[in-house]
Amino acid sequence: MKTEILFGIHPVYEALKAGKRSFIELYVSKDKPRLSMRLKQTISLAESFGIPVKTLSLKNMHKITGSEIHQGIGAKVSVYSFADISDLFDNPEPFILILDSIVDTHNLGALVRTAQCAGVSGIIIPKDRAAGPTPGVSKASAGALEHVSLIQAVNLVNIIKELKKKGIWIFGLAPDARQSVFEKDFKGPAAIIVGGEEKGIRPIVKKQCDFLLSIPQQGHINSLNASVAGAVVMYEAFRQRYSVP
Amino acid sequence: MKTEILFGIHPVYEALKAGKRSFIELYVSKDKPRLSMRLKQTISLAESFGIPVKTLSLKNMHKITGSEIHQGIGAKVSVYSFADISDLFDNPEPFILILDSIVDTHNLGALVRTAQCAGVSGIIIPKDRAAGPTPGVSKASAGALEHVSLIQAVNLVNIIKELKKKGIWIFGLAPDARQSVFEKDFKGPAAIIVGGEEKGIRPIVKKQCDFLLSIPQQGHINSLNASVAGAVVMYEAFRQRYSVP
Repeated sequence: MKTEILFGIHPVYEALKAGKRSFIELYVSKDKPRLSMRLKQTISLAESFGIPVKTLSLKNMHKITGSEIHQGIGAKVSVYSFADISDLFDNPEPFILILDSIVDTHNLGALVRTAQCAGVSGIIIPKDRAAGPTPGVSKASAGALEHVSLIQAVNLVNIIKELKKKGIWIFGLAPDARQSVFEKDFKGPAAIIVGGEEKGIRPIVKKQCDFLLSIPQQGHINSLNASVAGAVVMYEAFRQRYSVP
Repeated sequence: MKTEILFGIHPVYEALKAGKRSFIELYVSKDKPRLSMRLKQTISLAESFGIPVKTLSLKNMHKITGSEIHQGIGAKVSVYSFADISDLFDNPEPFILILDSIVDTHNLGALVRTAQCAGVSGIIIPKDRAAGPTPGVSKASAGALEHVSLIQAVNLVNIIKELKKKGIWIFGLAPDARQSVFEKDFKGPAAIIVGGEEKGIRPIVKKQCDFLLSIPQQGHINSLNASVAGAVVMYEAFRQRYSVP
């Protein structure tokens, strides 16, 4: 079994709750003078599952997690397991997020966290030239990565074609699009594409979109961060779909 | 004149455009093999203003900016100048963002950037126990900090009372509020309060709110990042205020 080292309270806690990973062992820093409530809960939960808990020096915690933001906890676990595209079709009205080449791990983590809160049923990312579901992304997502259905596409265009065949409408975010996200109906089966930080959605992917939409912006800067743009469109869709008035 | 060192292409470029800071000198890294278009534009703009441009080694760039993410450019400028609360009342229907104790500089930068795009007329932050407008925040805001009206409140409660006297409605984000941000009318003079990362809006500030509102959330994590929560509520207000259909 291939393994990796999760670190941080939220990733370890949420992975335990989600039950998708196998846990080999838990690491706790012995230099942590005061265990927070959440840390204690996490250790108890791991113990209740019969997972061995090892106590390490702070130095060894840094070393084993490869990070200094482990918050005194880590775990050796099975590597992240992707969902399959067919899983999305169990839902008659899927709400899908497609990330076309997000490269910053913090942006990926933030988008995954927001997607989880906004009721997104699955997230699709390309296999190449994009950030993937590393332990650092799990940390940046506050553990949301452990719960979501993440699908890795070898060929994003082919996957989008498959979604279209299933009757899913494809909405792409494009800063230069004339129509606003606030003018669009996101009810029903929908997939929203958010492009990468530098260049947005790639032209070959853009061509597959049924609608291109922009987020209205004022002021001098005129560019939202990719994770914020994603949040705005996901929540506009959420607002409409769950028919809050 | 008190000075500080801005760093990064966006902060320096936007500060030049905004014209609120005095520029003492510009620093450019000589180890930058290829000057990007934006970097060239920034240098030209500085030269057109008669600002001296100094070329430094990469090592000295790191040293003078105190950062390794300066993108080959820095500037010695006058310190950030705050706006005054009275500036906000020039606008008959101000749209104000109040940040109650955001401590993370990346969150502050992200909120400032989003606020600028969402047509916010002024941002109020407390003087103590909160992130302030450092060069790092200007960087995190992609230079948006250079354009916004930022007001520092010695006593946030007093400022909120002053806003209320001027007929401005106070909306506070609270995860446990029964009413949703999507059920509320944000038209007219409005101030939205976003609380700090750990504990949200402080009780003494919460008491001043006319309305407490939550962002509907699904899933297992149930907590949006502060900068994302701020973006969702700012854009919901923006959507309503600028009457996009």
